Amino acid sequence: MYDGVIQELIDQLGRLPGVGPKSAQRIAFHLIETDSQVALELADVLREAKEKVRFCQTCGNVSEAEQCSICLDPKRETASICVVEDSKDINSIERTREFRGKYHVLGGAISPIAGIGPDQLRIKDLMKRLADPEIKEVIIATNPNLEGEATATYLIRLLGSMEITVSKLASGLPVGGDLEYADDMTLGRAFEGRKRVN
Amino acid sequence: MYDGVIQELIDQLGRLPGVGPKSAQRIAFHLIETDSQVALELADVLREAKEKVRFCQTCGNVSEAEQCSICLDPKRETASICVVEDSKDINSIERTREFRGKYHVLGGAISPIAGIGPDQLRIKDLMKRLADPEIKEVIIATNPNLEGEATATYLIRLLGSMEITVSKLASGLPVGGDLEYADDMTLGRAFEGRKRVN
Repeated sequence: MYDGVIQELIDQLGRLPGVGPKSAQRIAFHLIETDSQVALELADVLREAKEKVRFCQTCGNVSEAEQCSICLDPKRETASICVVEDSKDINSIERTREFRGKYHVLGGAISPIAGIGPDQLRIKDLMKRLADPEIKEVIIATNPNLEGEATATYLIRLLGSMEITVSKLASGLPVGGDLEYADDMTLGRAFEGRKRVN
Repeated sequence: MYDGVIQELIDQLGRLPGVGPKSAQRIAFHLIETDSQVALELADVLREAKEKVRFCQTCGNVSEAEQCSICLDPKRETASICVVEDSKDINSIERTREFRGKYHVLGGAISPIAGIGPDQLRIKDLMKRLADPEIKEVIIATNPNLEGEATATYLIRLLGSMEITVSKLASGLPVGGDLEYADDMTLGRAFEGRKRVN
């Protein structure tokens, strides 16, 4: 619809997750029309990020060094490992301040439709880490969706024979939510996992 | 929250219009974690767009040449000029195939809050173009919001003394919309602008 490089920029932006054609157009024109150096700064930081950011050799978290800051932190407990799908899930869990152990990033979830099986995930690396007798607990924190649940089920079976406590994040009603608007699956899980309080 | 360059990338992305902190994080990790060259390609096209894209000397539309493709097109009518706020509005109007004349981009709208007065817009350039006796009609197509309306009112007064037909896009109910959900202003405008059909 537009000439040359403008359309190219819109197309590239439109390929980003969560950015539709209208947003892509809006962002492109914002970048082109502002006098400031926003577009060039973004170009630089993209290039820098792609060059500098690596993945932690131990847990697979994003990092600028060989090991991430969590793996290097001597104050973190080494007895428990929390298994997540993506690096950004670590950030979400860190914000809760509920967990002081280490992490393991799978790099996705099992999804036959997308052609991702256990071999495409960092499960072998996890098994290697679990060979360390110091590790007593694995907390599975995959997403509560179809792929995440499939991955959790696979891991639970795989770890079943080991002398390690394996747990999974609780499913139930979101805090601040409304019973009326909860979907059937969530409400069902909340019932299934009900806790006795007296 | 994150280390160095990752947080920098998230911050830069979060400054784009319509991209919140969560989307910025999602896009950043998408760019970092995909093996492909998406991030580098985006960096290149950003740099290229910023270098190549200029503004048409006549109408102010984005263009890779001194004049945009619409101003250069000999098939376009030269008697009417449609005045818009931004280059991307041209694309929206072009899609309707209702207009075969030329455009004039103001580069924004009058907004005292944002410190934008008539002098910050390309109104002087418009007046220079209108000195050409060939131009018979000006269609004002600013946005139907506070700033757009103020700009339209200003232009209507400014062009009042000239021998040119001045019109403004119709306000009313959006096609496919529901009377029940129309806001009072829109419904009021629809009444005000009602057309006799018999």
